[in-house]
Amino acid sequence: MADGSSGAKPSGEDALIARLFAPIATHPGALGLKDDAALLAVPPAHELVLTKDALVAGVHFFADDPPEAIARKAMRVNLSDLAAKGARPLGVMLAFAIPPDMDVVALEAFARGIGADAALYDAPLLGGDTVRTPGPFTISLTAIGAVPTGEMVRRTGARAGQAIVVSGTIGDAALGLALRHAPERSGFTALNGEERAFLLDRYLLPRPRLPLIRALREHASAAMDVSDGLIGDLAKMLDASGIGGEIDTARVPLSPAARRAVETEPTLLEVALTGGDDYEILAVVPHHALSRFHTVATTAGIGVSVIGHTVEGQGLMVRDGDGAPVSFARGSFSHF
Amino acid sequence: MADGSSGAKPSGEDALIARLFAPIATHPGALGLKDDAALLAVPPAHELVLTKDALVAGVHFFADDPPEAIARKAMRVNLSDLAAKGARPLGVMLAFAIPPDMDVVALEAFARGIGADAALYDAPLLGGDTVRTPGPFTISLTAIGAVPTGEMVRRTGARAGQAIVVSGTIGDAALGLALRHAPERSGFTALNGEERAFLLDRYLLPRPRLPLIRALREHASAAMDVSDGLIGDLAKMLDASGIGGEIDTARVPLSPAARRAVETEPTLLEVALTGGDDYEILAVVPHHALSRFHTVATTAGIGVSVIGHTVEGQGLMVRDGDGAPVSFARGSFSHF
Repeated sequence: MADGSSGAKPSGEDALIARLFAPIATHPGALGLKDDAALLAVPPAHELVLTKDALVAGVHFFADDPPEAIARKAMRVNLSDLAAKGARPLGVMLAFAIPPDMDVVALEAFARGIGADAALYDAPLLGGDTVRTPGPFTISLTAIGAVPTGEMVRRTGARAGQAIVVSGTIGDAALGLALRHAPERSGFTALNGEERAFLLDRYLLPRPRLPLIRALREHASAAMDVSDGLIGDLAKMLDASGIGGEIDTARVPLSPAARRAVETEPTLLEVALTGGDDYEILAVVPHHALSRFHTVATTAGIGVSVIGHTVEGQGLMVRDGDGAPVSFARGSFSHF
Repeated sequence: MADGSSGAKPSGEDALIARLFAPIATHPGALGLKDDAALLAVPPAHELVLTKDALVAGVHFFADDPPEAIARKAMRVNLSDLAAKGARPLGVMLAFAIPPDMDVVALEAFARGIGADAALYDAPLLGGDTVRTPGPFTISLTAIGAVPTGEMVRRTGARAGQAIVVSGTIGDAALGLALRHAPERSGFTALNGEERAFLLDRYLLPRPRLPLIRALREHASAAMDVSDGLIGDLAKMLDASGIGGEIDTARVPLSPAARRAVETEPTLLEVALTGGDDYEILAVVPHHALSRFHTVATTAGIGVSVIGHTVEGQGLMVRDGDGAPVSFARGSFSHF
């Protein structure tokens, strides 16, 4: 049953939200969170890039994750989309639904997480909405970015005969999640405490690759962020571009922790390559631009690795280090 | 517990969402919903106005309301905020969380509702996200609008000695909600079927007053939409502007159905004036601009009524038709 009024909030809740979030919303366009809407100027000769991801407790994060980390994850998965499109953040609009058992301390921590990342990534909180829910903690965030007009990097621009590259390392987050579910697996018991902490942290806190935005705009023919798993996401991007591709699993960059887990328990390679939550950048770059792309990325402190190349035709061929075709059980991303 | 991957969706769900929503997302910037983000050009010499409202089944609508109406309500409560700011819609970003018991037929109806209002209000669906939830159906919508630079109508611009006006009629939606909860009340049994249907519909389907945007930009010193109840919202706007006000309840425009309900059961007047969900425009207009404001509104087919005036000082004085002060039990909006 709907309650007395759509807009009704428990007494004092407006004041609580104002106390927690108004100090974060320092951008003049947020109007102190006191108006119906936010106001935002767009830089001249720029277009808007808009993305929106929702996260649900128990589905996209663990309900007992630190609220500050949940907030930062909500910020970062959206900022990661902007990064992949070559867009710099202008701000975010945040809505969240508070479950009955969420207390003020948790809300304070959640607000701190939003504020910390808004400052870190220059992505100010502009406005939003807070509601009550009988269900799980649910967050929806819209990130607003800008690119010079005509320069957004799409999924559709890749051509045959170009390099397939990824930033950072792949599989850490998926392994971190698998570790939370089944720490007794041999691949995980082989890790030391620092390695386990590294994987867990990579699941908890994505790193949006915003330092790559200029390199992507200047050199990439197509890009996306890896959220649903490297193999599946690459297959989608190749499809969108109307071409095929081949990658070599031995060239996929793994962190030392991921490498040790996979070497100890080889079936974890599939988790790493298909599990998702990487929030690394997957891009296609013409060979002639590779060295400049690599230089700009390295200067920005972000590693990039060539893992394969695009081909005429369609579908994604995945080969192991010896050139033998690999197929995975999960998903329908392999087209052969 | 989080499932196997943050991005994981039940098999075929991506395809279902694409089938239902891609045909609606006809704006070129939606990129067929096939990219990570949407692309939007902002008209020259305009600023963005951004608003975001979330709706939860059982809190903001009835879980068994028609999904098409739920969709339209989500669109309209956001578009109403744009209207109050004098902004015309550029598009919307939509996220929703699907509960386990929501079937394809309901999703189709929900998509139809979004598409119908996107077309009706020229507010194209640009992108968004779809997730699963173990909780109630939850919708979050961000509406993106544009105003000529510097012309957004704020809550803070009202001055003393100006007219307080509202569009349309007040209280229909709150009475419609009260009627759903308690149809046996004497105020409702006095209504005929058509009058009851009118109130129920006003709760179900707000009418964002977009035809007023130019009149508001040109003539209003402050405006907001009435979502939390006329009295409480007006008190907020007066506070934000640093002034006080007086209204006469006898001048608050009521529909014939609302008038009959209130005349039969006078305590329903409080429901009408404090209940909310009106999504009418509440504005402050200098007296010298009133007749032009009235003419433009009437030409656009929307009635506007003067219900009081602003004064120096602070707080909202509510008087009945005989000039006697009125106070209401609900809320803390009365400052005396």
